[in-house]
Amino acid sequence: MRTVGAVLFPGFELLDVFGPLEAFGVLRAEFALLTLAERAGPVASAQGPEAVAARSFADAPPLDLLLVPGGIGTRTQVENGALTGFLAARARAAEVTLSVCTGAALLARAGVLDGRRATTNKRAFAWVVAQGPRVTWVPVARWVDAGAVVTSSGVSAGIDMTLAVIARLVGRGAAEKAARRMEYRWASDADDDPFATLYGLG
Amino acid sequence: MRTVGAVLFPGFELLDVFGPLEAFGVLRAEFALLTLAERAGPVASAQGPEAVAARSFADAPPLDLLLVPGGIGTRTQVENGALTGFLAARARAAEVTLSVCTGAALLARAGVLDGRRATTNKRAFAWVVAQGPRVTWVPVARWVDAGAVVTSSGVSAGIDMTLAVIARLVGRGAAEKAARRMEYRWASDADDDPFATLYGLG
Repeated sequence: MRTVGAVLFPGFELLDVFGPLEAFGVLRAEFALLTLAERAGPVASAQGPEAVAARSFADAPPLDLLLVPGGIGTRTQVENGALTGFLAARARAAEVTLSVCTGAALLARAGVLDGRRATTNKRAFAWVVAQGPRVTWVPVARWVDAGAVVTSSGVSAGIDMTLAVIARLVGRGAAEKAARRMEYRWASDADDDPFATLYGLG
Repeated sequence: MRTVGAVLFPGFELLDVFGPLEAFGVLRAEFALLTLAERAGPVASAQGPEAVAARSFADAPPLDLLLVPGGIGTRTQVENGALTGFLAARARAAEVTLSVCTGAALLARAGVLDGRRATTNKRAFAWVVAQGPRVTWVPVARWVDAGAVVTSSGVSAGIDMTLAVIARLVGRGAAEKAARRMEYRWASDADDDPFATLYGLG
């Protein structure tokens, strides 16, 4: 059983968090889900609705997987040392750290992506790249698996990445089971990224 | 500007709520999002993480769109008269009522689907059908647009349905914009349902 810690902050993107948590959550014998934030309690998403952070950063147990969403809140959270410090410390200890969308900007500012290959949201690509000058940014990728750190493209790409991480950690059958339960057509090719072209990066 | 009211109950499925809210939420000039439950405050999902209901049923403003998720909680919530009574009353007043997955069982028990065509989760199809003997259940459909009530198949199908509802209410371009922002490949054909076959219904 692995514990997945999903990091929340004001202005997080709803699907960046809840797409991956849905996929992990289908496999309840394999993954326990935990939401975390600087302070425990309600955290407002970019879209308005609030989710509850069950634990504060200070009170977080060991995390096997660390999930970092994007969203408009990243624009200010890149300056939040409490958040980037938590990410730096916990990414070192985690088996796999995952970011979705502009969550890669937070990992970049935390130094977690230095010397690694990574991708991010395609519409916000230039801004995220500017947060990580020592990162090998990959413009055309649905997600990039760099081993201990896996980064996905925008929003819904987080679901495809999560299924790939499940396949790696648990097995292809488990990922296919999760996709089937979600009635989701898994885009399982990490290199197939039509949105890069759409946003002039392909 | 239309108000979307998303109904929460203990054991709601995360992606059933937050997939559609993500799609509506991208179009902030068109849709305002509101979460509702029998009592305002934190509501635990089927997967564990809690979302906050901003308003109680008693305190809910007029809703243009009513979103009803599924999840394991529906198994007991079909007996919750406070919930089905709220759905019956608010579906009558709403421009469009949407259900995702086994949320159709709640609408069925509320009488909202009587005499209408509807679909639901394919794995739980038989149980949902048993909740609505006066409903014309459609086994092979990603979603069914019956005008004032639109019902989708399991979990991720809610995103495809929501984009179709956006296309009908606002325009195809708005739906395509939302999909693009989510970097989501919209499965825009309501009749294309590979999961019906997978679960022996096709």
